[in-house]
Amino acid sequence: MASTDPMSPRERLLDAAARLSYRDGVSVGIEALCREAGVSKRSMYQLFESKDAMLAASLERRIPGYEARLAHPDPESATPRERILHVFHRLEQGSVDADYHGCPYLAVLVELKNPEHPATRVARGVKERLTEAFRAEAERGGARDPQLLARQLLLVFDGASARAGAGVERLDDGLATATVTALLDAAGMD
Amino acid sequence: MASTDPMSPRERLLDAAARLSYRDGVSVGIEALCREAGVSKRSMYQLFESKDAMLAASLERRIPGYEARLAHPDPESATPRERILHVFHRLEQGSVDADYHGCPYLAVLVELKNPEHPATRVARGVKERLTEAFRAEAERGGARDPQLLARQLLLVFDGASARAGAGVERLDDGLATATVTALLDAAGMD
Repeated sequence: MASTDPMSPRERLLDAAARLSYRDGVSVGIEALCREAGVSKRSMYQLFESKDAMLAASLERRIPGYEARLAHPDPESATPRERILHVFHRLEQGSVDADYHGCPYLAVLVELKNPEHPATRVARGVKERLTEAFRAEAERGGARDPQLLARQLLLVFDGASARAGAGVERLDDGLATATVTALLDAAGMD
Repeated sequence: MASTDPMSPRERLLDAAARLSYRDGVSVGIEALCREAGVSKRSMYQLFESKDAMLAASLERRIPGYEARLAHPDPESATPRERILHVFHRLEQGSVDADYHGCPYLAVLVELKNPEHPATRVARGVKERLTEAFRAEAERGGARDPQLLARQLLLVFDGASARAGAGVERLDDGLATATVTALLDAAGMD
């Protein structure tokens, strides 16, 4: 990074942590992160308590953008069904990017295997918020069991993102939205 | 390991690689693997070309047991629908184990993010075989689009295993089988 870079060392580290852990996995080394950010290890440890804390902060920082991408562009005029389907449509759209490796929050959960890790807590929060958003839409749409439907939708969301991210499935023919449509219909959703 | 252990160094390494990579992730170090197996690094490199090759061999070795666990105990008397549901019932049963971290093959795919890794190739083969088994059952059961249904079932299988493995979902109330039942019904399966 050039010295004219307007980002602070903290921001550069958070960007590098998000980018490299997404591309290479959470086991990416501190040396690689500091090199990518153009920040010394000494400075890194002045800014963050640990690599774990830095990873958690980098995931936390991405939440608003992540959730904005999944939100319907015109929520007032859309039905609950349309707002749910939009989330999966965005997942399908994003999955065709060459550098797509699935939902970053699911990847962290699968990779860390540690419920106490600070990054796990961030990722779990994102998943809980999405589940609750689906549950609320399911309730508005008259689903028989909104909580069950929301949990079913998360199975599809995370399964689709994991499989497309790993390159063993393609979603651009509408696989996720077709699956979700069947589940919304089965749940009696408007 | 005691020297009276009847397993060969090769078997001990494969066991250690399967156990530790499942528990801690594929980034587990060679030192830790050799220590767990009670085998020197030098011996390890005489037996395997690389850690990657050892990991791939350890995953390959587990396939028969993995697939046997998912197979219906009485396939002749079961219907295609029952044979499909049995797979998800076993997933639900397995997910309550204290040391459950999800499907080991999905975990490897998510963690490695590398289609050329030898372990990725093994994992992809397992997923392709399960998809084909579902497709064949869907065809026997009269599903409208057996290939689409099979792909939908894999989304649920991998989503359920990832979420339960990461501890953000519980399957023991029948979540996976309920989801699959809705999809089988929607596909017009007997």
